[in-house]
Amino acid sequence: MCQLLGMNCNVPTDVTFSFTGFAQRGGKTDHHSDGWGIAFFEDKGLRHFVDHQAAVESPVAELIRRYPIKSKNVIAHIRKATQGVVSLQNCHPFVRELWGRYWVFAHNGDLKDFRPRLHSHFRPVGDTDSEHAFCWIMQELAKSHASVPSIPELTLTLKELAARISPHGTFNFLLSNGQALWAHATTSLYYLERRHPFGEAHLSDEDLKLDFSQETSEKDEVSVVVTSPLTRNEAWKAFGKGELVVFSEGRRLEV
Amino acid sequence: MCQLLGMNCNVPTDVTFSFTGFAQRGGKTDHHSDGWGIAFFEDKGLRHFVDHQAAVESPVAELIRRYPIKSKNVIAHIRKATQGVVSLQNCHPFVRELWGRYWVFAHNGDLKDFRPRLHSHFRPVGDTDSEHAFCWIMQELAKSHASVPSIPELTLTLKELAARISPHGTFNFLLSNGQALWAHATTSLYYLERRHPFGEAHLSDEDLKLDFSQETSEKDEVSVVVTSPLTRNEAWKAFGKGELVVFSEGRRLEV
Repeated sequence: MCQLLGMNCNVPTDVTFSFTGFAQRGGKTDHHSDGWGIAFFEDKGLRHFVDHQAAVESPVAELIRRYPIKSKNVIAHIRKATQGVVSLQNCHPFVRELWGRYWVFAHNGDLKDFRPRLHSHFRPVGDTDSEHAFCWIMQELAKSHASVPSIPELTLTLKELAARISPHGTFNFLLSNGQALWAHATTSLYYLERRHPFGEAHLSDEDLKLDFSQETSEKDEVSVVVTSPLTRNEAWKAFGKGELVVFSEGRRLEV
Repeated sequence: MCQLLGMNCNVPTDVTFSFTGFAQRGGKTDHHSDGWGIAFFEDKGLRHFVDHQAAVESPVAELIRRYPIKSKNVIAHIRKATQGVVSLQNCHPFVRELWGRYWVFAHNGDLKDFRPRLHSHFRPVGDTDSEHAFCWIMQELAKSHASVPSIPELTLTLKELAARISPHGTFNFLLSNGQALWAHATTSLYYLERRHPFGEAHLSDEDLKLDFSQETSEKDEVSVVVTSPLTRNEAWKAFGKGELVVFSEGRRLEV
């Protein structure tokens, strides 16, 4: 199974601490060594890094661990190939442009017999079920709205679309357009909302701890979504099966 | 004026040597410090790096100089902002997907009053004339062909499109879909075809030389396109005004 990591914040925040633990799962504490990727929004702009080397060995992952890129919306993925060969074009997250915004998508799971005809202009470049599903979502979003809708409107549309894909298999995914982070779970997905008062966090995958009270201001709010809890001493909440949650400005929105 | 660098090869080749000289123009030997970017194709996959820091200071550029990413098609750009603020979404090269392939575009120059209506689905994310022109090119390509055309067919279409944009100003650009590299010049653009027998090259922007005969095999062919010659001792050819050239498998094609 692949591993997902998402972060949504109210102020640009670096993901160095979480990524350090997460990257260990790419070939060290877990066996997901078929590539990895990460995307950071900066306003509407995007930094997108993919590599088909294992995240623990990748010089690009080393850069991310050392260079604190600050972002309000981050999506990362470590790949264990189930469908599609190990190649750069099959590395998540995938990116497309719609309505003058970039959209970033990463998927964990396996979809069976989900290859709907893509009659619009979004086409997969690689050969994964995941990118095919993403292109279908983009196609359906483009048909459902004339321009970027509000976050609640988009959330309702995404709930409908996720419900149509979910019967085909395991569909844990993260999606962001730089305004919000959407997360959908079939099997394993957890989230955490960090806000004042901040405490100390201990990584599960590496012997490293960080006192967030030293790194943050009282107004900071950060939500983290991940396949399995990244820290040992914080209260991660499990997603329900088929649950789609949207995070904006660092907190879960009720839609 | 911005700076462009393109490379097209018959075998995956690293761009470390050329990029080392080129990156000096981002804030050191020339004053283009409003961001930079580079894209490397690996088969149909793409590594895309953008940064709004000056290339001489950017940790991401440092990574590119040290990590020899091998690619058959590379496009790099150093930005001097003429239109659009300094922000990540305005950094070239820009990327879009069409017909299941990524397309990468970088522009040097300034277009006046070229804001044609974009009636299709390609929309700029940032606010540069360059990204607007790229979206228009993608729109017109999508209308002209049903799927990825042959390189000569695409070249003819691109010649027509470039001729329609060129009257609006300076339109030096590089475009690649991973199969070929197209280059169009209004003012300053040079190219070089390196093939057997290889010799020694001396960078113009830094005191560095490289003996390509030690780094290559007899079959290697590499074309490099750049705003101004990167080396002091090789026979760079200047583009004519309005000339569009396509490079495939490391050499110029006559179309």
